[in-house]
Amino acid sequence: MRARGLDVTLFASGDSQFAGPLRSVVPVALNEDPALDGNIFDALHIGALFEHADTFDLIHNNFDWKPMTYALGRSSPPFVTTIHGFSQPQILAAYYACAQRSFFCSISDADRDPGLSYLATTYNGIDATSFTFREKAGDYLLFLGRFHPEKGTHLAIEIARKAGVRIKLAGIQHDETYFRELIAPQIDGDAVQLLGEVRGAARDELLGNALALVHMTTRPERFGLTLIEAMACGTPILGAQMGSIPEIVRDGITGILCRSVAEAVEAVPRLAALDRAACRAHVAAHFSIERMVDRYLDAYRIALQKRLPDPPTPAHLGARAHDWWDRPMAYTDIPPRPRTLRFDS
Amino acid sequence: MRARGLDVTLFASGDSQFAGPLRSVVPVALNEDPALDGNIFDALHIGALFEHADTFDLIHNNFDWKPMTYALGRSSPPFVTTIHGFSQPQILAAYYACAQRSFFCSISDADRDPGLSYLATTYNGIDATSFTFREKAGDYLLFLGRFHPEKGTHLAIEIARKAGVRIKLAGIQHDETYFRELIAPQIDGDAVQLLGEVRGAARDELLGNALALVHMTTRPERFGLTLIEAMACGTPILGAQMGSIPEIVRDGITGILCRSVAEAVEAVPRLAALDRAACRAHVAAHFSIERMVDRYLDAYRIALQKRLPDPPTPAHLGARAHDWWDRPMAYTDIPPRPRTLRFDS
Repeated sequence: MRARGLDVTLFASGDSQFAGPLRSVVPVALNEDPALDGNIFDALHIGALFEHADTFDLIHNNFDWKPMTYALGRSSPPFVTTIHGFSQPQILAAYYACAQRSFFCSISDADRDPGLSYLATTYNGIDATSFTFREKAGDYLLFLGRFHPEKGTHLAIEIARKAGVRIKLAGIQHDETYFRELIAPQIDGDAVQLLGEVRGAARDELLGNALALVHMTTRPERFGLTLIEAMACGTPILGAQMGSIPEIVRDGITGILCRSVAEAVEAVPRLAALDRAACRAHVAAHFSIERMVDRYLDAYRIALQKRLPDPPTPAHLGARAHDWWDRPMAYTDIPPRPRTLRFDS
Repeated sequence: MRARGLDVTLFASGDSQFAGPLRSVVPVALNEDPALDGNIFDALHIGALFEHADTFDLIHNNFDWKPMTYALGRSSPPFVTTIHGFSQPQILAAYYACAQRSFFCSISDADRDPGLSYLATTYNGIDATSFTFREKAGDYLLFLGRFHPEKGTHLAIEIARKAGVRIKLAGIQHDETYFRELIAPQIDGDAVQLLGEVRGAARDELLGNALALVHMTTRPERFGLTLIEAMACGTPILGAQMGSIPEIVRDGITGILCRSVAEAVEAVPRLAALDRAACRAHVAAHFSIERMVDRYLDAYRIALQKRLPDPPTPAHLGARAHDWWDRPMAYTDIPPRPRTLRFDS
């Protein structure tokens, strides 16, 4: 943004890496000092921004729902929120209540809530030059991410076993019961290898030397940063035809998308034939930092022109009786449904 | 307030009892529906007020620190916060940060933080006619409140035992370890009687028939509603010379204040001679709802005239390195001290 001539002030913790003006309430990120009360310092952080809100032309909020409640009905400048996912159903109540005040950007078309209108889809971007391109396909499949049922770790293992290809699992145990019951019993150090969390140069090598990254999600992915990181290394995706994945992966070109484990098993032999240079070129063309900035600049222009979002349409209002609580899904953390909550307009 | 001609709009949950205009975000109090996420609906509730802030002449906040962070530096009307106690040290950071924006009322002189300046002390008030005056002193001491070391339940028992007078304990177990270790072993159903939580008419009778209410706190009391309720019934206070108690109890007239258990034991024989009518008259004169409203109307007038609080004095700024975390105190819930937190101005 600053390279494009924008005058950007960042409100973030004091240890943030930023060459421009930084405004902080806490010296370190809240998770660096567990004794700092997040509720209090979140609020003071947001309050510190709104104290100076009228000195900015536009506020871009990447801090989830809470700052929007401060912007409600006030004289602050156009307000744009990037929704980086809905962590639980009740958060939708905050987005609905603030839809009159904040413009919204989604991080994929798939991650849009039908009860909201959006200004733009602003895909994340990466600097492809910080990933090493490797021309030669490796001989193992890779699962990289949280070990959680929604990430389909168990499906990745099943596909690798049935296809007769080794799989390496790198990531953290997000759901301990799931890991203990469905993942741990399958680890044998050969066909199924557990690497734990892998970072830096080792991660780059692991990504680039894989035959493919397996991403058979069971819940729609919101964006999927590892997908573009893998492709930047030249590694194609064996992914679910679900959520954001079809927006990020060109089926048959930078990966193969499947509707079932059986389809994925059949696809494995075709992975080595995919053009690894095309994977990297796809990231450079569509998921670079420059493209991300382009998308945001377009969104900012519209927000500056309109000032306030259009009121929700009857279709949006009608879609606000969402079905989160009604979805049967194993191993999930959807909280109990409030007895009294209504999503009226 | 409405009886005095003020036009009051109440922002509270939909089940609130209020004859005037009520604005609600949630249909029931948040603790009535445990599945409602308090963080989200607190924020939406506060946001709903600030959406209409400029339609009010003054905002009176009884919802602790969070609404102040919304008022920071904005064009909303004069903002008055009654501080009903500081639940933990980090909350002071919010009060310090918002001292430029919000006027403060304390519920006693004793409960003032030396780092803040205050508009007024606005003692709580009750309707004395809803408590039955009983002229005759009873033959038991009463402990009424949470069983917690800061309320001195163990000291009340010790005083009663040493004075040779029965004591009745009414309230809830707030600190289970404390109750199990120091209170439960002393309950014998005769000299020390456990009643549990007592409400309504039974509570009125229990209060009014006591020789005295024992209130030997170990941490300074902020106000002490049960003190004025007991006195409204004619029952004097045997209390600690600490915190707000000397402001509420006239020593030697509506109770006896002590600096130690030994002093309190010596005072017990003098309790029956106190004038119970004077206790009730004291409440009617100083702790009625009318007096409370008078105090708030005076505070509102000053706030409306000044619009914004004066900046903190060097003395206030210097006092902001408070000592909460450094106090040695048994059975308390002071959270760990953040490594990185500073109370700089």
